This record gives sequence, C-alpha cells and structure tokens, in this order.
Amino acid sequence: MSDLKSRFIEVYGVLKQELLNDPAFEFDHDSRQWVDRMLDYNVPGGKLNRGLSVVDSYRLLKEGKELTDDEFFLSSALGWCIEWLQAYFLVLDDIMDGSHTRRGQPCWFRVPKVGMIAANDGVLLRNHISRILKNHFRDKPYYVDLLDLFNEVEFQTASGQMIDLITTIEGEKDLSNHRRIVQYKTAYYSFYLPVACALLMAGENLDKHVEVKDILVQMGIYFQVQDDFLDCFGSPEVIGKVGTDIEDYKCSWLVVKALELCNEEQKKLVHENYGKVDPACVAKVKELYKTLDLEGAFVEYEKESYEKLTKSIEAHPTKEVQAVLKSFLAKIYKRQK
Amino acid sequence: MSDLKSRFIEVYGVLKQELLNDPAFEFDHDSRQWVDRMLDYNVPGGKLNRGLSVVDSYRLLKEGKELTDDEFFLSSALGWCIEWLQAYFLVLDDIMDGSHTRRGQPCWFRVPKVGMIAANDGVLLRNHISRILKNHFRDKPYYVDLLDLFNEVEFQTASGQMIDLITTIEGEKDLSNHRRIVQYKTAYYSFYLPVACALLMAGENLDKHVEVKDILVQMGIYFQVQDDFLDCFGSPEVIGKVGTDIEDYKCSWLVVKALELCNEEQKKLVHENYGKVDPACVAKVKELYKTLDLEGAFVEYEKESYEKLTKSIEAHPTKEVQAVLKSFLAKIYKRQK
Repeated sequence: MSDLKSRFIEVYGVLKQELLNDPAFEFDHDSRQWVDRMLDYNVPGGKLNRGLSVVDSYRLLKEGKELTDDEFFLSSALGWCIEWLQAYFLVLDDIMDGSHTRRGQPCWFRVPKVGMIAANDGVLLRNHISRILKNHFRDKPYYVDLLDLFNEVEFQTASGQMIDLITTIEGEKDLSNHRRIVQYKTAYYSFYLPVACALLMAGENLDKHVEVKDILVQMGIYFQVQDDFLDCFGSPEVIGKVGTDIEDYKCSWLVVKALELCNEEQKKLVHENYGKVDPACVAKVKELYKTLDLEGAFVEYEKESYEKLTKSIEAHPTKEVQAVLKSFLAKIYKRQK
Repeated sequence: MSDLKSRFIEVYGVLKQELLNDPAFEFDHDSRQWVDRMLDYNVPGGKLNRGLSVVDSYRLLKEGKELTDDEFFLSSALGWCIEWLQAYFLVLDDIMDGSHTRRGQPCWFRVPKVGMIAANDGVLLRNHISRILKNHFRDKPYYVDLLDLFNEVEFQTASGQMIDLITTIEGEKDLSNHRRIVQYKTAYYSFYLPVACALLMAGENLDKHVEVKDILVQMGIYFQVQDDFLDCFGSPEVIGKVGTDIEDYKCSWLVVKALELCNEEQKKLVHENYGKVDPACVAKVKELYKTLDLEGAFVEYEKESYEKLTKSIEAHPTKEVQAVLKSFLAKIYKRQK
C-alpha cells in the first residue's frame, strides 16, 4: 500500500474515535460498539478513490508542494466525508434494491440482527459527516460553504436516485434520461465533490468555478458510460467481477443506445429478453449489442468525450486547476477496470 | 381553523412550489409529480404543534408584538422545516418498524408503487430542509447556526432511535435507559428545536441558553411519559385512538416503572405477557399496573416534574424567555390527550 494511502487510513481511525466519543450523545457500551462495527463494516472497505482524490487535488492546487501534517489531516478528513457519504448511499441503495452482496460481503442490512436498523445506520452515516465537519472546520472561513456543498451534492444524488427508481426502461429510459440519472446520481458526488472540497480548502470561491464543475460532471458521465460498457464487454479477470447489468434490468448506456439504434423487431427482442436471468436471454441481448456494433459506438463516444474534455481543460486559465482536471482524466481514459 | 394556522399552512404551499422548481435539479413532469404527491402525503397531515410553536415562540420573544409579514413567513418556514424533519423520521421509522398506518392512512412505504422508494423519499425530505434554509436564510447572520442546529438535533434523534432499536426490554430497559431514549429520540427535536429556531431568529446565541435547552429537554421527557401513561390509562374517545403499547412491546415508561417496582413473580408475569396481541395477556399486564399503583406513581411524577420545571423557569433572568417556556408547559401540564 502506498504511504499516502496508509496515512489516509490512519485518519479514519482518528475520526472514528472522535465519533465514538461525541459529547452530543450519551454513548454506552452497546451503542458505542454498534456504531464502531457499523463503521468498520461500511466505510473503509472500498477503493477509496474518491477520498484519496481530495488529498491529491489539494496537493496539485498547492503547486504540488508537500502538505503540512495539518493540511494532510484536513484534506483527508474531507476525503473521508465523501467516503462516509458513499457508505450512506450504498447502505440505503442496497436496502432499496434488495441486493445481496457489496464489496464481496453481505450487504449490511443482510447481516444477522441488523435488518432494517440499517436504515437508521444510513442516517447516522450521513450525520457523521456533519459531526466531522463541525469538529474540524467550524472555525474555517469556508465552513458554511462546506456545509452548503455537501448538502447540495447530497440533494442532487438523492434526486438522481429518485429518477432512477421511478423511471422504467420501456417507458422513458432514452439517452437524455440516462444522462440525467448518471449526472445526478453519480457524477456530482464522485467527481465534482472531491475537487470542490479541495478548492474550498485552497480558499477558492466555488461560484467562480462553474466551468470546473461542468468539466467534472462531464467526466463523471463519461466514467459511468465506461462502467456500463465494461460490465458487458470488459474482461471479468480484469474488472474483478462478472457483469450482470442485463440480468438486473439496469438502465445501462448500452441498452439505451441499443434502443436508440434498433428497428422495431430488435426493440421487441430487447423487451422480451432484457432483465431475465436465463442465460439464453442474456446471450440474445449481447448478440444484438454486437449486431448494432455498440463496441464501435462506445469507441466513438470515448474518443469524442476525451477530445471535448481535453479542449475544455486546456481552456482553463490556471495551470493548477488544469493539473487537477488532467489528473482525473488520465486516471480514467481508456481504463480497462 | 385559527387564522394563524391557515396562514401557516399557506406557507407550506409556497415552500413546496419552490422545492418543485429547484434549479439544483432538472425536474421533469414525472419526478415533479412524485415529489409533489410525496410531500402532500407525508408533511402537512399532523397536528403541526411543533411547527406552529416556532411562530408562537418567536412572537413571545418579541414581547408579544405583532409579527411583520416577513417575520411571519420566516418563522413559519423554520416551523415547516421541523415538520419536514418529523416527516423524514416517520417515513423511515415506519419502514423500520414495519408499521401499517400513520395519521389514519397507510404508511407511505405501504402505498402501491412506493415500497422501498420510500427510503429515498425520506432522504429527500431531509434534504428539503437544507434547500429551504438556503433559499430563505443564506444571507442571515445566523444561517450557519441554523445549519449546525438542525444537524446536531438530527444526529441526537437518530442516536436516540439507535438505542431504542438495539436495546431490548428484558435486558436493559431500565428507567435511565428509558430517559436516554426519550431524551434523544423525541425531546430535542420536539421541544428544544422549535425554541432554538425562534431564539436564533431573535438574534440570540444558543451557547448562552444552555439552561433553556435543559428545561425544554426535561419538558420533552415529561411529555413522553404522559404519552406513555395516556396510551394505557387515557380515554380512547379523548386521545382519538386505542393504545397498543403493551401489544407492541413498546419501551413505555409504565413497563420500565413496573419492572422497577415489582417482585420476581411479577417480573415473570411481565416477561410472559408483554408484547403479546392476546387480550388476556394485555389484561394481565394492565392488572399488574393497577396492583403496582402506576397511576399513583404517574400523578406523583407529574407533580414533581411540574414543580421542578416551574422553579427552573422562574429562575430564568429574562421574562420573554420565561413566557415562551411557560407557554409550552401550560400546553402540556395535566393534558388528557
């Protein structure tokens, strides 16, 4: 593990201990133990890309200068707030989707004696963000902007989740709906939020960085389209799982693109076979994807996205911000996992 | 309906329209309609006591002077934020408890086509509070204090809900646990929060009002004990429902008081009959409550609470704050419903 990552994980331990001794609540042994276990189960087990990218971005904004211990701790704390936000969404999403596993273990609500208490644990995870921000940023000039930022991004994510839940593929999942779902449900919190946190720490006013937001949201959409593509066309050995978007009736870029390109007969094939666990149905859908050359459509989309993003990034007036955006783009362009 | 109440309800309509046209999200017809219906179903249907008490308290803090239209609107908006908070807790609590009805209609998650989407709707309700505060209070000097206040009270409520969910009656629901559950789960948001909102609007610093907080939290605990008492000993015609705390295995003040007072044999009776739907079991528990003279114990508790609260209120240095606290106490002392 890189030194950066192990130092980042140390910060998790500090934040957790503070939460377990929060004077705003009278913890006893059982409640403290419950929260301790709930946090360890749900917060630190992911790839931590979102959280780490706050520290990375902040360093790039500081012209790549070494961070002081205090700067490292604070940017890590903000990174962890994003990981906490992600944990909160995942715990609730798994309940709503009736999922079984997450990050290679049973979903939290599937754990014995947890069940629906998981919904309240989700709420607690969200509340921990406010506690962390209050503990470490209350006296910063950008404290209120941090609160507004997390609130707005959470609102956008929940709104994206709402349209994902209430729209059906047959009805209305065209490309513009797909874009809207991905943008709100994923792009704001995964791409914009880490950079926005770093900008605030660097003393920037977010109202003056609307173009940075736009670029990162576009990058987030591109990232999710890649995800959808890799689920079907990626190598399971490389991505580490066998994709099941077709079986799961997911509103993937592939299916909405297919519906856009296909004729009436092919449309009927999609409606008859999409969302079925039967391998024969899945095979028919994949066959159609090949007939419609969705691999070609994706390569085209990837090329266009990359060119547009590069152009937008190079139009940005400050080189530090350019460095942050280029670092994000480099991490995802032509990724295989 | 009082003029105050109908004007208060008009404010709901204004706030709802703003939320349905929030520029932070791209609403379409379906998503706007979903939120519209979800709000009408869950937010305005209660007694509105918590919300209205913000307006009342603010008026009393202003020495009873008539509020300007702007002051009325803003104090009502804060009152509605508390009603939104309550709706958020209730939607999620009903999912966690597997409840069937709420305010005389099916729980939101029981409504056809809603189901587990209700969990995300709960999240949206919480997010609406941040949107309302941002829309109307962003430029106020007390904006950041409002955000901190709602965050802290939400954290305390969720923490109270957690201990309620993880503690079992047999094990550990003694009186001190009961106090802790009630204090965190109910008292902060129902009693302290409305007055704290009014104090902030009146330009007060909440750190200087710790004794006001303590008094209101004590009042909230007293209120919940009354609730528990009335569930069993109140007249169904007056309280408007037939209590089912015994059947529902609720951690009521009565059962924890009973366990405190009873001998080993009576304890066995509680464990064998509490939480059963069988009317014979319920009757046995009620019989024991009479044997132990819990009515007498309650009258004693009520008298003591009233005297302590009155003494604390009269020790407060400012008469406007005294008026607010006395108004709360007068509304609940010896209530029959």
